[in-house]
Amino acid sequence: MGGESKGPAVIDANSGFGPDNLPYCVFELGGEASIGVRLGDRVISLRALVENGQLPGECGAGNLNPLMAAGKRRWDEVRATLQGMIESEDSVTETASHSIAEITLLLPFDVADYVDFYSSEQHAINLGRMFRPDAEPLLPNWKHLPVGYHGRAGTLVLSGTEIRRPAGQRKEADGSIGFGPSQRLDIELELGYVLGGDSSMGTPVPIGSASDHLFGFFLVNDWSARDIQAWEYVPLGPFLGKSFATSISPWVVPTPALEPFRMNQPVQEPTPLPYLQDDGTWGLDIDFEIGLQSRTMEVPDIVSRTNFKDMYWSPVQQIAHMTINGASVRTGDVCASGTISGSKPGTFGSMIELSWNGEEPIHLSDGSTRTFLEDGDTAILRGLASNGTAMVGFGDVSGVIVP
Amino acid sequence: MGGESKGPAVIDANSGFGPDNLPYCVFELGGEASIGVRLGDRVISLRALVENGQLPGECGAGNLNPLMAAGKRRWDEVRATLQGMIESEDSVTETASHSIAEITLLLPFDVADYVDFYSSEQHAINLGRMFRPDAEPLLPNWKHLPVGYHGRAGTLVLSGTEIRRPAGQRKEADGSIGFGPSQRLDIELELGYVLGGDSSMGTPVPIGSASDHLFGFFLVNDWSARDIQAWEYVPLGPFLGKSFATSISPWVVPTPALEPFRMNQPVQEPTPLPYLQDDGTWGLDIDFEIGLQSRTMEVPDIVSRTNFKDMYWSPVQQIAHMTINGASVRTGDVCASGTISGSKPGTFGSMIELSWNGEEPIHLSDGSTRTFLEDGDTAILRGLASNGTAMVGFGDVSGVIVP
Repeated sequence: MGGESKGPAVIDANSGFGPDNLPYCVFELGGEASIGVRLGDRVISLRALVENGQLPGECGAGNLNPLMAAGKRRWDEVRATLQGMIESEDSVTETASHSIAEITLLLPFDVADYVDFYSSEQHAINLGRMFRPDAEPLLPNWKHLPVGYHGRAGTLVLSGTEIRRPAGQRKEADGSIGFGPSQRLDIELELGYVLGGDSSMGTPVPIGSASDHLFGFFLVNDWSARDIQAWEYVPLGPFLGKSFATSISPWVVPTPALEPFRMNQPVQEPTPLPYLQDDGTWGLDIDFEIGLQSRTMEVPDIVSRTNFKDMYWSPVQQIAHMTINGASVRTGDVCASGTISGSKPGTFGSMIELSWNGEEPIHLSDGSTRTFLEDGDTAILRGLASNGTAMVGFGDVSGVIVP
Repeated sequence: MGGESKGPAVIDANSGFGPDNLPYCVFELGGEASIGVRLGDRVISLRALVENGQLPGECGAGNLNPLMAAGKRRWDEVRATLQGMIESEDSVTETASHSIAEITLLLPFDVADYVDFYSSEQHAINLGRMFRPDAEPLLPNWKHLPVGYHGRAGTLVLSGTEIRRPAGQRKEADGSIGFGPSQRLDIELELGYVLGGDSSMGTPVPIGSASDHLFGFFLVNDWSARDIQAWEYVPLGPFLGKSFATSISPWVVPTPALEPFRMNQPVQEPTPLPYLQDDGTWGLDIDFEIGLQSRTMEVPDIVSRTNFKDMYWSPVQQIAHMTINGASVRTGDVCASGTISGSKPGTFGSMIELSWNGEEPIHLSDGSTRTFLEDGDTAILRGLASNGTAMVGFGDVSGVIVP
């Protein structure tokens, strides 16, 4: 049974922001948007360091797009400069910094295209079992390619944005067509990443250089209206069941900060086609928690604990696949991993799995139960990578449901 | 049988550009991008009219986005001003104009999100018959909502852009997984439109005000790799089978120019839900032709002639549906109608229908046959609305296949 709450949070959303991490954000202060880098509970303004001549001009922009467009070599230079300043205790990192309490965080980049993958084997199996109980749970293409689809870039929003319960058509149990606010509003815990550096249309990005486009990572809550989705999605895929909102966390963790947490991916059998083959070391050991908090609760209950390491398809495989037909990468392209579900109950990344299609309600500490989200509920997803020596935090992505 | 070429073109891609039309474009001349309006075989530079104080500042931008963002009232003012100047034979419209031979046309706007609908009943029936021969050709949701999905905004390209044959995975006839250049590369004739004026996230656009966002229309060739699509598309919809390229025509026909060609849509049975109901007068009487030209041919053969008037779901229904879940409209959002197919052979909007899944090859005047596109083939889609008094041209959208 996956129905029991797992007690209080283990992941502290404010931990893992030491010098190993240095995630980017964009913040507003005094009417001006600036790029920042988080260190502890402060954010260093890169605009101030540009004015000091310590960083290149792209770092003085109002969002991350110009820096992301400048390419990996520039990203590495900027990170090395920042790490050097922090290590040498350059006083500027203090005078150019602000407490996170005094700034307003903004969406850190303009989104170009948004692609949502479906790369957790366990998630695909779980949904297959629920929706096609008499058939093989995995569809025939699933182990040959990272299945994905385009989502709506215009409704990617920052953590903290209220999520209005979407209305739409659904098929009722009696076969009639119903309409109204979604009755099966769900979360999906995913890891997102944003790409930088344009590639040429007509030329695939080889898997060996895919990571040159990987600017950084963040948390994604791919809100999903299961009833709308179930009725609309044949034959062209999810549309309104997803497009009402997708929330992301404000901290963009630079790709090099995740190096200590890379590990072997699960063995891929059958062996994928050559364009999807590499050394298989883009597995990532990152822990996640899902918290749910009703209107009457003061802190969230943790309803799932999971890890990225079981994900079948890696980010570099996803990029190689997305471009094998010649589709170009543009700076600001966002991809999400797909729902992250482990193999045991209580490690699933969505409520439809945690409540097994609504059959096994989740018990909350206020005495209520949940199968899907109710108005006033807040969902909080947290992430942290930690291996005993290095610790890299993702913070959290949260959203409250409003009617 | 749909296999015979229909002889030479009837639609002249240079007709229908009188004062009733005045389509927008963006062109480059002397290193500067400007908005233009086409009149006959000339393009009036709006930048020059802004400098003269005759048009508002948005018209002096390097693409249409600022004007589109300004909203319908501004669009109507600009169109009225231009029509007044042309009617009064203001000499500026001549001195500020250039021959279309001397300018380079550019993509007229930055694309925000791109949504591709599937709104021709005959096209959906044809594909259903081919792919699910033993089942009802229309899926249960089709007459209840305009089925659609998000496509890749970053690979929308201007007419004339070479189209590189995409590579990808496919399922071979023997059940094995193949890889290589697509062997079933196809066209899809669609009518596209671009939206202006942002709507608020969380608030649907009612069908009665959907046309306030409709800036203008153009031709779309939604290139499709049928073999890639057939293998990948379950369960999340088309992805790499479509994302390699989508071509659009350079002339954005203002919505008011199509008023004389509005007509009743086909009767919708069952009656759609209230949010999709209006007076049903957004049918459009627009003729289209599809031309195919091999490397050895000097002019294209026309392989299909069709009309928009049989389209089941209208643009305003599509907009109302796309936002009913609270998804916002952003300036630069592009939608496409779905493949436009009539009910008779020879009126279909794709080669997979014209050649009936490859079983009835199309005969070209050079003696060759086609089921799908070969390297060196050029596809040319043309559109023209004409009712005896008014005539509004769309020009053409073309692309040549390169290996």
